[in-house]
Amino acid sequence: MPLASGLGRVLDRDVVSTVDLPPFDRSAVDGWAVRAADVADASSAGPVRLAVLGEVRMGAAAEVPVTPGGTVRIPTGGMLPAGADAVVMQEQTEVNGATLLVRRAVRARENVVGRGEDVRAGDLILRRGRRLRPADLGILAGLGLVEVGVIVPPRVAILSTGDEVLAPGQPLTPGRVRDMNGLALAGAVQAAGGVATLLGVVVDEGPAVEAALRRAVVGHEMVLVTGGSSVGERDVVADAIRALGPPGIVVHGVAVRPGKPTVLAIAGAIPVIGLPGNPVSALVIFDLFARPILEQMLGIDPSVRPWDKVGARLAAPLASAEGREDHRRVRLESRADGIWAVPLPAGSQILTSLTGADGIVVVPPESVGFAQGDLVEVRLL
Amino acid sequence: MPLASGLGRVLDRDVVSTVDLPPFDRSAVDGWAVRAADVADASSAGPVRLAVLGEVRMGAAAEVPVTPGGTVRIPTGGMLPAGADAVVMQEQTEVNGATLLVRRAVRARENVVGRGEDVRAGDLILRRGRRLRPADLGILAGLGLVEVGVIVPPRVAILSTGDEVLAPGQPLTPGRVRDMNGLALAGAVQAAGGVATLLGVVVDEGPAVEAALRRAVVGHEMVLVTGGSSVGERDVVADAIRALGPPGIVVHGVAVRPGKPTVLAIAGAIPVIGLPGNPVSALVIFDLFARPILEQMLGIDPSVRPWDKVGARLAAPLASAEGREDHRRVRLESRADGIWAVPLPAGSQILTSLTGADGIVVVPPESVGFAQGDLVEVRLL
Repeated sequence: MPLASGLGRVLDRDVVSTVDLPPFDRSAVDGWAVRAADVADASSAGPVRLAVLGEVRMGAAAEVPVTPGGTVRIPTGGMLPAGADAVVMQEQTEVNGATLLVRRAVRARENVVGRGEDVRAGDLILRRGRRLRPADLGILAGLGLVEVGVIVPPRVAILSTGDEVLAPGQPLTPGRVRDMNGLALAGAVQAAGGVATLLGVVVDEGPAVEAALRRAVVGHEMVLVTGGSSVGERDVVADAIRALGPPGIVVHGVAVRPGKPTVLAIAGAIPVIGLPGNPVSALVIFDLFARPILEQMLGIDPSVRPWDKVGARLAAPLASAEGREDHRRVRLESRADGIWAVPLPAGSQILTSLTGADGIVVVPPESVGFAQGDLVEVRLL
Repeated sequence: MPLASGLGRVLDRDVVSTVDLPPFDRSAVDGWAVRAADVADASSAGPVRLAVLGEVRMGAAAEVPVTPGGTVRIPTGGMLPAGADAVVMQEQTEVNGATLLVRRAVRARENVVGRGEDVRAGDLILRRGRRLRPADLGILAGLGLVEVGVIVPPRVAILSTGDEVLAPGQPLTPGRVRDMNGLALAGAVQAAGGVATLLGVVVDEGPAVEAALRRAVVGHEMVLVTGGSSVGERDVVADAIRALGPPGIVVHGVAVRPGKPTVLAIAGAIPVIGLPGNPVSALVIFDLFARPILEQMLGIDPSVRPWDKVGARLAAPLASAEGREDHRRVRLESRADGIWAVPLPAGSQILTSLTGADGIVVVPPESVGFAQGDLVEVRLL
């Protein structure tokens, strides 16, 4: 794709430079190109005299070489002329007709940015799997690239199920709730680097769910299906996933709170994930299982960078039942004595516990929680 | 704009709910709607008998009320019938024809998610200036919104100057370098929530720069102009900015390394920022001065959240000259004893010091740097 559109996209190959950057020895200052040996004895008390031979023009080849006893004027970024090996800063010189007085000695290479000092031809610049940042676009432009090879974003189909679930924009009737999972998951897919297709809401009946899933696996690299919450509903979705064929369901139920009724399956080569109907659970399970798969498809290392977490002290106790890994939402507060984590409501029904959160604290399955003042690790949202 | 396209956009107004979420009392489990008083004495040794009166259908109004001594079957998420004030889990009951045996007492409201427990009509849900996250899209959908009011992204014109600077795609000739600032800054603008217009490269001559800037201030809310690095080049750009009219230049030169020759100006109501020609300097100055202005235009609090930084120990000394605030690039390493920051090359010519970096350490102007092993604060890139 055009490099100019590449921000946030993921490289599909290593980028190796074919050029040196800078492509020639450049002056780092406004001044005079010299042979360092000529000015080795220069000082303010005993300036050295050099013959002014010419000038380097910006953006042009240095045409006049520096011969012994001579010097050439050079701007910052100008090309160092043949014969010269250093630059004296303008402030340390004085021009007197065709003669330059140099009041300070310079070492060889002083005030010179050498050819290839930033990048050498053959250097590995960026690795496959890199998510392109602003500076990356700059360096790739500097290498002369105008297009860049990127991973085609995985297409993810999102299906909501449940007799009580209303598609956005439909009028609310008694006993029904609006679908929150479709848009929340579409946003999570987009943030992870995928492209979401919202397939809407289907009623909680085997044939309808199965037909929708059969359409979903065509033209997508992943399928997410969120359950409603009616009696036996999990079975309807699980049965429909099973009917897609081998290898089928790999995991049915996970020791995670919220998110127990999760289904992890593969239909042909397509991952199909059955997520809980509660939006908080759906987003927690997305983060835990769907995002790493998407990142793997994109060639990104799925392990969280350790510095994407922050340590904080708990402002209140965080009680948890044993036996399941508990993903709890916290708000962060910066106080005089450090960062504090304020636990938010535990219920997976409470989506405001996620919109109001700055991060997640994970309570391990063998723990009954943390006490007030405990230091906890917060994964930032 | 459509809510479905809103990820990452910034709300232009507070969102106050007009509805309760959930919109009715719902069962949190599969079970039986009861009057808690009826089953106050229930136990496995002494189960209570209730008359089965009917069933709540998913997604429909609860039609059969629960009268004293009676019960109605209810699915997870089903609407609590009139008369009932709690739900007994299915696992704690047994159906015997038209009679239900209840083996456990429940408190009033037990296993019920109350109307408005997540959101009440009148609640402030999200504030103006909020950058929309996946969960936000979910809750806004739940409130019934299909469109959302967002700040129109500021349009930022980007102009590169310099006789030696080549536009992308042009063949390299001696003495010239390819423009890296245009695409790097366009990426930085996009990442900050703005829309970039690349105006290309102009030669380093007053009339050309001034004419380009006059075009740039029309139809944009901010202008960024990067200098080349030829003699007096700063003056050409500064003079051209001055010629745009009052209020004109506010700051000319900042005590920051890299980035000293920065110009901060206003033309009419349009911020015009002159950035250094070196790409590292340009990106550091963008982060320091342009991004906060963009965030202010978007209504976002420009102060960095304190937890967007990470503490690390320096793996090597970081020497700095006094008198300027030094922004140094570091790579982070996670080791057994914590996170370590490895300083990268200091030169502002070295763009690979930015592409290879995980964050920035700021050395204050009054400091000569940090020693190996010192704890430093790293702003993550």
